[in-house]
Amino acid sequence: MGLFLTMEGPDGGGKSTQIRLLAARLGECGIRYCTTREPGGTPISDKIRAVLLDPSHGEMAPKTEALLYAASRAQHVAEVIRPALARDEIVLCDRYIDASLAYQATGLDLSYEYVRRLSEDATDGLWPTRTYLIDVPVEIGIERVCKSRGLGLDRIEQRDLTYHQRVREQFLEIAASQPDRVLVLDGTKSTAEVAEEIWQDVRRFL
Amino acid sequence: MGLFLTMEGPDGGGKSTQIRLLAARLGECGIRYCTTREPGGTPISDKIRAVLLDPSHGEMAPKTEALLYAASRAQHVAEVIRPALARDEIVLCDRYIDASLAYQATGLDLSYEYVRRLSEDATDGLWPTRTYLIDVPVEIGIERVCKSRGLGLDRIEQRDLTYHQRVREQFLEIAASQPDRVLVLDGTKSTAEVAEEIWQDVRRFL
Repeated sequence: MGLFLTMEGPDGGGKSTQIRLLAARLGECGIRYCTTREPGGTPISDKIRAVLLDPSHGEMAPKTEALLYAASRAQHVAEVIRPALARDEIVLCDRYIDASLAYQATGLDLSYEYVRRLSEDATDGLWPTRTYLIDVPVEIGIERVCKSRGLGLDRIEQRDLTYHQRVREQFLEIAASQPDRVLVLDGTKSTAEVAEEIWQDVRRFL
Repeated sequence: MGLFLTMEGPDGGGKSTQIRLLAARLGECGIRYCTTREPGGTPISDKIRAVLLDPSHGEMAPKTEALLYAASRAQHVAEVIRPALARDEIVLCDRYIDASLAYQATGLDLSYEYVRRLSEDATDGLWPTRTYLIDVPVEIGIERVCKSRGLGLDRIEQRDLTYHQRVREQFLEIAASQPDRVLVLDGTKSTAEVAEEIWQDVRRFL
């Protein structure tokens, strides 16, 4: 049975860069891995992702959003994550259930229990063995996102600073309540430093 | 407060024709109404509908399907149905929660309770006052659908006869268990006969 690792945290923390660096290290060691991301990860999930992130959908109901993330996740787990784990691969996933808890439950004032149950049911209870939470102050994260893309922000990113602040706090609360699963990393450190901390931790599972 | 009516039953029973005829009668009487359908009914729900019915998506996980229907329904209720009811209109909706219970719960071997809870949560418990179930034997229904469209069947319709048979039985079970809400109509009767039966029933609520 493989190993399921997720990367979480506010936007602009450098999650995708860290996944790329970790994948490269695993590749160098000849370890089989699979990188994927949410929302998305399968053709069906990518179409759901497009509906979710379309900036013209400002009027989306909070429950619609939570259900779309759960739908995308159900497909992703069934079609990509479980098969990869069954092939004994290491799965590196950019965002997963914690992101729904932070962005939908806290950010949209849906009940934490409702969002958690949706994801638990959708995934038949599949949680990652280890989650790397790259924490970064909201202002720094948003500044980085704007810089790297020009001015275009998607529908989720356009929400106000207070929203992103609550999302960040929720991520940190999850980490505090599940220290065995979630490792918090300081995203204001250099990319190389964060990568090294992650690698030292991953090695313990190999 | 308006009146919420739904039209249900196997494909090919003539639901959309009956909604059109009922809407025309209401219009003649000067009664304000709103016609809508699931999956769909809003721009966001229409995009979700496109994902659900794409024939290239044969590999969709059952839970993904159930969650997409629930997402579409959450948006539809928030954006269309509740506002129309608040404007004191009669809402005529082509398919609703019963369709999910028949097609997803029974047809896809998901738990009835899971699918029911998803929809109850998504709609904050909004059930129709009256549901017209136009029952038609599966072979006749499918033959009608094929005739009216040529050979093209969507992803749901392509499933085998046994599936559609179980769906029909589930519709009839729902009707038997909730006789105060669901009125069963014989879809092999003429369009005019069925329309008249529906109209006589609707008048009781006006």
